[in-house]
Amino acid sequence: MILGRVIGTVWATRKDEKLTGSTLQIVRPVELDYSPKPGFVVAVDAVGAGVGEIVLVVQGSSARQTVKTQNKPVDATIMAIVDKLDIEEQG
Amino acid sequence: MILGRVIGTVWATRKDEKLTGSTLQIVRPVELDYSPKPGFVVAVDAVGAGVGEIVLVVQGSSARQTVKTQNKPVDATIMAIVDKLDIEEQG
Amino acid sequence: MILGRVIGTVWATRKDEKLTGSTLQIVRPVELDYSPKPGFVVAVDAVGAGVGEIVLVVQGSSARQTVKTQNKPVDATIMAIVDKLDIEEQG
Amino acid sequence: MILGRVIGTVWATRKDEKLTGSTLQIVRPVELDYSPKPGFVVAVDAVGAGVGEIVLVVQGSSARQTVKTQNKPVDATIMAIVDKLDIEEQG
Amino acid sequence: MILGRVIGTVWATRKDEKLTGSTLQIVRPVELDYSPKPGFVVAVDAVGAGVGEIVLVVQGSSARQTVKTQNKPVDATIMAIVDKLDIEEQG
Repeated sequence: MILGRVIGTVWATRKDEKLTGSTLQIVRPVELDYSPKPGFVVAVDAVGAGVGEIVLVVQGSSARQTVKTQNKPVDATIMAIVDKLDIEEQG
Repeated sequence: MILGRVIGTVWATRKDEKLTGSTLQIVRPVELDYSPKPGFVVAVDAVGAGVGEIVLVVQGSSARQTVKTQNKPVDATIMAIVDKLDIEEQG
Repeated sequence: MILGRVIGTVWATRKDEKLTGSTLQIVRPVELDYSPKPGFVVAVDAVGAGVGEIVLVVQGSSARQTVKTQNKPVDATIMAIVDKLDIEEQG
Repeated sequence: MILGRVIGTVWATRKDEKLTGSTLQIVRPVELDYSPKPGFVVAVDAVGAGVGEIVLVVQGSSARQTVKTQNKPVDATIMAIVDKLDIEEQG
Repeated sequence: MILGRVIGTVWATRKDEKLTGSTLQIVRPVELDYSPKPGFVVAVDAVGAGVGEIVLVVQGSSARQTVKTQNKPVDATIMAIVDKLDIEEQG
């Protein structure tokens, strides 16, 4: 999974019918200190994440393994909101 | 999903039979301000997107989860046309 | 899907038994003007593409969605031969 | 699979219900001499790996093929703890 | 599939039980002239490839489509040993 911050929302009225009711969030990948990395991914929200929150995004076919995303044409899903990281890197 | 702009169409008469009737669009990834990024992807259109429109492209096995693409040999599908983005990036 | 040109063939007599009879082509990704990009991918040919032809390559699990590749250990399949591209990029 | 070192843990109380009880480890990819590479991935631990250990991480749909991860929304799983590498690179 | 050379072996006694008996090889990607490219991937061997041999590696869910890897948590499998390449690149 990738670590990122929710920075916005995509509005799309014309979309595949299976996506009706899905919230499409824009997620900026972040470093371990939460500073932004380049790029972004559009992900369906499965856990009620709000703008500014640090989240985990699951990609690929596993993005369809939540109740809110099963059988849907989505390849990225927010499936956790991060409380904190414990880092103990050694040399 | 990736954000992109439809910039053209691929014509291919010799193709896998499951692709008969599919429209193959060329999508240029774009930044959050819709400026073009390097590269492009060829995607099947599932929502009637026209050239110039900003779209979302789903990749991988999830690209087969629309009515127009199920069981087809496609790894990228346009499954939404974007109306607008709300960005609220914080530092 | 990625756009590429067939530039050669891989010969391999010792391979997984499911690959018997499959043609393994070497495909160089190309730009929209067909100039070569760096790198290459080895793909199974599902449409009878010859060396020099411009093709589309499908990757991932979708590479197994043609009659010639189903249930085979392949992650890239040539599933279309390109006639032409219509590009209408706008600024 | 990628080779990496466990460098920390992610704490997340609000997450998809299927992830209850899963340990989310932060893995830094490493070179063959175990020196760190850029970037990191968040992976579910299926083998009881501790911080500092060198591990293998499986990605994509195959990340769901362990007893601890089946049918879960995870795209990266630690499925082996490395004892040693034998390298015999030739020119 | 990617083209690479087997350069070593990973030893791991603590691993997911489905991996018992699997050989984990280290594969360095190579150019078309077999010179090494940066990076490496750890792959399960399905064809009896030895160190120094040039092989094809299948990735993603297709890596589970050999008899030796089905239903296992592996995302890269050596499924062919290369005899030779025929390259006919045209400008």
